[in-house]
Order: sequence, then C-alpha cells, then structure tokens
Amino acid sequence: MFAGAQVSLYPMADGFVDIILSSLSALDPWRDRLRIETDDISTLIVGPPEVLFPALHDLYVAAAASGAHLVLRATLSRGCPGEPDDPICQTGALANPSEPLVSRQQSALTALAATPETGQATDAQFSLYVMGAGDHMAEIMGCIDFLKQSGTFDRSKNFCTRLTGDAGPVFATLQQAFCQFGPPVGHVTIDLTVSANSPSKR
Amino acid sequence: MFAGAQVSLYPMADGFVDIILSSLSALDPWRDRLRIETDDISTLIVGPPEVLFPALHDLYVAAAASGAHLVLRATLSRGCPGEPDDPICQTGALANPSEPLVSRQQSALTALAATPETGQATDAQFSLYVMGAGDHMAEIMGCIDFLKQSGTFDRSKNFCTRLTGDAGPVFATLQQAFCQFGPPVGHVTIDLTVSANSPSKR
Repeated sequence: MFAGAQVSLYPMADGFVDIILSSLSALDPWRDRLRIETDDISTLIVGPPEVLFPALHDLYVAAAASGAHLVLRATLSRGCPGEPDDPICQTGALANPSEPLVSRQQSALTALAATPETGQATDAQFSLYVMGAGDHMAEIMGCIDFLKQSGTFDRSKNFCTRLTGDAGPVFATLQQAFCQFGPPVGHVTIDLTVSANSPSKR
Repeated sequence: MFAGAQVSLYPMADGFVDIILSSLSALDPWRDRLRIETDDISTLIVGPPEVLFPALHDLYVAAAASGAHLVLRATLSRGCPGEPDDPICQTGALANPSEPLVSRQQSALTALAATPETGQATDAQFSLYVMGAGDHMAEIMGCIDFLKQSGTFDRSKNFCTRLTGDAGPVFATLQQAFCQFGPPVGHVTIDLTVSANSPSKR
C-alpha cells in the first residue's frame, strides 16, 4: 500500500514565508513515521492515515495560531495502483471490507467521540473519491450519512461537503471518512481545503 | 449533465481581498454562460468545460498580473451521479466514448496546437479521477500519455502531474485532459492547483 498527501499552506499575508516555515516544527513529533519532500508547489507527506491526519491537524493549528487568514490544501490518496508498496505506509486503520456500511459508520462515530478539542475554529470542505470496481456511489453516500451524524457536518455543496467546528473533531472526521469508506485495497482519494481566520466569517 | 468547479484564489499578500475582487471582472465576458455563487471558502462556477477552462484561465491571468505570489485552486467535476442535469452545462466538447484512446489523444494535441500564448508563466499540478464502471486506470494512463506529448508536461509526482509553461497552453492542456478522457456520461473530476510568481522559483 502507498498512502500520503500533497500538502500546501497558503497564508494570505505578506509574511507568508515566515508563517509557513515557523509552522513546520509542528510536524517534528511525527517525522520518524513520515517521509517528507518539498518543492515550490506542495509538500509530499507519505505515511499511514493514523499518522498523516494528526500531523496535518498539528500543522494547521500551528499555522492558524499566527492569526493570519490561511488555507491548508491537501490531495490525499491511498491505494493508487500506479504507486509502489511502501513499508512506511503499513496501517491497521482501514476498515474491513466485509463489514456493512452501518457498522463502519458506528466505528467512525466511536473514534470521533474519543477525539479531544484543540481550541482552533475550523472550516473545511472536501470531496471523497472512490475508484475502481464496486459501487463507488454507495460508499460515498454511506460516508455522507456518517458525516451528517458526526457533529462537524455543516452542509452539502455542489461537488463537496462542508465541515465546521473545532480542529480536533474536524480532522478526526476527515480521517474516518478516508479510512472507513472505500475498500482497503481500493484507490481512495480526498480533495481537501481547510480555512482559518477568514475575514468573510468575522 | 452537471459540470463545474469549486474555485478559490489565494494571494499570499496582505492585500489579498483587493487582488481577488479586482480579478473577478475577468469573468465578465463569460458570465452569461456560467452560474456563479460565492461563500467564504470557494466560488461555485457551473457551466460547460469549453467555457469553464477559458474563464478560469482569464481569472488566473488577471490575478497573477498583480505580481503577488498566488495560487488558484479548483475542484472540477462533470457527470457526478448525485447532481441534477442542468441546461447551462450542455456541451459538445466531450469525446466520443467509442473512439480509441490514440485518436482522442490526437484530438487533444490538435486543439492544443491552436491555443495562443498569453504571456503569463504558470506552474500547475493536478490529479484526474475517473469513477464508476470501466478501466479507470487505462483512461488515466491514456491521459498521462497525452500530457507527455503536450509540451506543457513538467514531471510526474506522487498523486499528481506537474505542468509548466505559458498560461494559455497550460489551461488548454487541462481542458483536454478533462474532456477527452473518461466516458462522457461518466463521473470525472480534477483536483487542480495553479501557482504564479512563487518566490521559490526566483
């Protein structure tokens, strides 16, 4: 299995370079379980979902603490047939494919209930894509059912779903969406946008 | 058919609001063929691909002319089974599904050759997702073959492909990738990032 994300931080401020560089230390506790490579458009973070989502959460919260309006953007992927297996991606976090949707939804809600809040107000929107064999729309609709019970659901939009709330539960909701829906050996991706400190919300 | 995009502009500058608002007039020539709705995270633009991509190009070029480092981000979608048919999305731009990949690649290259340059240096990366029945990886690999011949191909990265060059051909390449690959009645999406004026490139 190969899993990870292309991640970018966009602080809407003249001092964007300093905000990005000073936030990166939030990744330090996770670095021994991730492989990280940066270019001028995005940072590749390779690793299992149970490490990746908490790491993205910590990066986002550190950057948002600057007070600047900023967006964290990520293209997340697991199981792409074009990528090689990588030992660093080994994970026990993906759902059993033979489990019915309703019990996977329940597992997701249980994990979410155990997630602490971290004090950072967060608005997110994302699209979950499930590719390959099987009924991809059944998995997506099953995920949306879970989202509506998650406590972080804001509303459905065209092409995506909006979440709102504390950063802790919001990133935990995203992690459950990525891990519990779509087959564990399938190709599942998320197109994610997380916004902090927007002047449109003040 | 329903087609469109959730689009955001991220100028990395204190004056981000002015840059965004002053760029929006670039959409004016296209507005009668698009439906546009904005919230605090993104702007929904509904319409056919042959209008959507030139409109995104014009928005990006207008914003990039500010000289600020900025990113245009879009979640593009066509044919999502969860969306209603919409007359504004009627299009003749999608490939015939019975045409073999090689002739669709040739059509894409012909369209690209007719695209004028617009003088804005552009770096983009994107992922094409093809969902539902059929061999989604064959369509994606067929698209990547086209990209390698497009003149805008920079390199493959994990989870995405990088394009570089003038904004005209770069957005035309994206339009061809969206229209020529994946079945016309299928669900096809693109996760797109386009960057201008990055200090990492200077």
